[in-house]
Amino acid sequence: MRLDRIFTDARLATMAGDDPYGAMDDAAVGVRDGRIAWLGPSDEAPAADDEIDLEGRWVTPALTDCHTHIVFAGDRSREFERRLAGDSYEAIAKAGGGIVSTVRAVRKSTAADLAASALPRLDPLIQEGLGTIEIKTGYGLNFESELNMLKAIRSLGLVTGLRVQSTLLAAHAIPPEYEGRADAYIAEICLPLIKEAAREGLADAVDAYCEKIAFSPEQVRRVFDAARAAGLAVKLHADQFSDLGGAALAAEYGALSADHLEYTDDAGVAAMAKAGTVAVILPGAYYMLNETQKPPIAKLRAAGVPMALATDANPGSSPILSLLTTANLACTLFGFTVEEALAGITREGARALGLEKDIGTIEIGKRCDLAVWDVDNLAELVQWVGARPLHGRILFGEWA
Amino acid sequence: MRLDRIFTDARLATMAGDDPYGAMDDAAVGVRDGRIAWLGPSDEAPAADDEIDLEGRWVTPALTDCHTHIVFAGDRSREFERRLAGDSYEAIAKAGGGIVSTVRAVRKSTAADLAASALPRLDPLIQEGLGTIEIKTGYGLNFESELNMLKAIRSLGLVTGLRVQSTLLAAHAIPPEYEGRADAYIAEICLPLIKEAAREGLADAVDAYCEKIAFSPEQVRRVFDAARAAGLAVKLHADQFSDLGGAALAAEYGALSADHLEYTDDAGVAAMAKAGTVAVILPGAYYMLNETQKPPIAKLRAAGVPMALATDANPGSSPILSLLTTANLACTLFGFTVEEALAGITREGARALGLEKDIGTIEIGKRCDLAVWDVDNLAELVQWVGARPLHGRILFGEWA
Repeated sequence: MRLDRIFTDARLATMAGDDPYGAMDDAAVGVRDGRIAWLGPSDEAPAADDEIDLEGRWVTPALTDCHTHIVFAGDRSREFERRLAGDSYEAIAKAGGGIVSTVRAVRKSTAADLAASALPRLDPLIQEGLGTIEIKTGYGLNFESELNMLKAIRSLGLVTGLRVQSTLLAAHAIPPEYEGRADAYIAEICLPLIKEAAREGLADAVDAYCEKIAFSPEQVRRVFDAARAAGLAVKLHADQFSDLGGAALAAEYGALSADHLEYTDDAGVAAMAKAGTVAVILPGAYYMLNETQKPPIAKLRAAGVPMALATDANPGSSPILSLLTTANLACTLFGFTVEEALAGITREGARALGLEKDIGTIEIGKRCDLAVWDVDNLAELVQWVGARPLHGRILFGEWA
Repeated sequence: MRLDRIFTDARLATMAGDDPYGAMDDAAVGVRDGRIAWLGPSDEAPAADDEIDLEGRWVTPALTDCHTHIVFAGDRSREFERRLAGDSYEAIAKAGGGIVSTVRAVRKSTAADLAASALPRLDPLIQEGLGTIEIKTGYGLNFESELNMLKAIRSLGLVTGLRVQSTLLAAHAIPPEYEGRADAYIAEICLPLIKEAAREGLADAVDAYCEKIAFSPEQVRRVFDAARAAGLAVKLHADQFSDLGGAALAAEYGALSADHLEYTDDAGVAAMAKAGTVAVILPGAYYMLNETQKPPIAKLRAAGVPMALATDANPGSSPILSLLTTANLACTLFGFTVEEALAGITREGARALGLEKDIGTIEIGKRCDLAVWDVDNLAELVQWVGARPLHGRILFGEWA
């Protein structure tokens, strides 16, 4: 078998198969055309022109962050500061803070501005082994600025070498000019944007925020119907602060994922299990907002719902740029096992993006996107907060 | 005035004076013999052979981590993994886990081993702007291994360029060979070690763990009396899981700090305020252990007790290597303001080590130990978890 390259002497956490972590000691990974073409014991590895000794290091799939709002403009750290100094949310909103301030800043930005300002935020994730990231719009909230966000997101894929999945989240919030007219906002902005994004190939999926303070299940249905008509996959911010039946709604539409889920009830869990909808758990927002209602992890686990983990990186409710810290939060606050946490930022993250056939595990035929670690035990990756355990990333079979 | 170097065009957070953060815009810092010799507006800055333009960046004092157990051996990530998979603390202890496993590994280590294995753990802290760190012993728990730890700690100061403060914490736990004989352990190991450490100049302070599962107030008194006789400052792990009056005891002995304080009562707070004892708050352990009893932050604040923040970095209860994440935890979980959090890892951290005349603020006469940041607002440093905002460190007036 002709291989372009072979990585030898690895301890693989393939995240596939029945063994814990799908672990394989003394293993080798052969690459052809950027994909995994051979997998087996190091001492049986076929020759290749280029042989790279990984010196016994642990190797996992490159990480996937399947839910982020990392493209934005402006800065809301002063709000964080004021809230801790005793100002109320209301006082901050009156002073022009909150998501509206992000929307205002995004509307003043070009697509190039948006891409440039997001780049340094990608860095910490990249330095922690990132291979794939999903990025949502939702701070433009008008036709032009949402398209600018989509273009910025696509351009980040081109310039970073990351696989970037673009999600249109025009139905994120009701912009000030549509206050009290959510239905009109859906009709006049969201639905035309879905068509345009699909036509231009700028979006891989459509998302919406189903919550009392945002859009009703009926409004979400209109968004999802339009996405379906345009041939786009759907995802949903569901049941974060109240149970509007978002999880079941997502399942009904065959959504890739339902995200947050703090208030999801038993019927929602059952519907997700039946539909194969991935639960995307976002402990960063739970922690940062000092919430007390935890998502029903034990029930999701018992029902066999795949659980992904993501940073939810955003300037308001989840200012976090570390998937490993997110994994620690999931273990510490929600009782994830270490293996569930690592699966959440690899295999299940990929599944939440519909990419499970292409990435997320170390298996023959998949992209050779790997993270190589300087740790003795995989559990160290999740146990330690703020450590910098990455040795290097391999994307499409080459050091990145 | 002759200056060796001048740093111009800085936005200083001097952490001194009455303004928020002691902020000075368009400022310059002049250095002579490694110390701050001039401070004022950039456009009035005297000339120097070496002029470095900081391009408008925010500059704080280099960070101080005033409570760590970062020198250890072995690895307890498998315990973390087992606990999350459902094993009880008891089952893990029976299988040889817990602090005893760290002690066993440390006793097998040379001073050189201990120093070498700690180096990569210092890296993430250094890359976040660290200038000074305190490191405790307490995993040797016999004469030879505690001395090895002290030597390892001293050597880390020499090889890293950090200011490293060494604390003898022989009274950390009762080693297996002294089970049920804590008084004998104090008499036969702790007290002779204090003398020896003082004689060899290996310790800057003496610490003890006052808790039902460790040492009683009476036993702590014997340790503190010996420290006093040897001319060493004292600190105390106080009131973490129960109120044994540790804070008041520390105050009575004029301790530099009382640390943890989750269960400290009003009398303890009052005693600390009167004595000027610094409260070292350790939110990492609170978070990692899923505790619910928070230290009395509002009371400490009202009483004017200085509050420092530290990582408590250790392999069991606080596996965290980020002072900025620690600051975020203090804000999010304990209601610190952003300014208190930044003071906690600079000015008050220095005070908790008795170094307040030398480091911790940007003032004339102090060491020119600075952290230079790539942020627009100081609050970003604390708001974002996992970001990598450091531009560079200046130690003793030079880029480090």
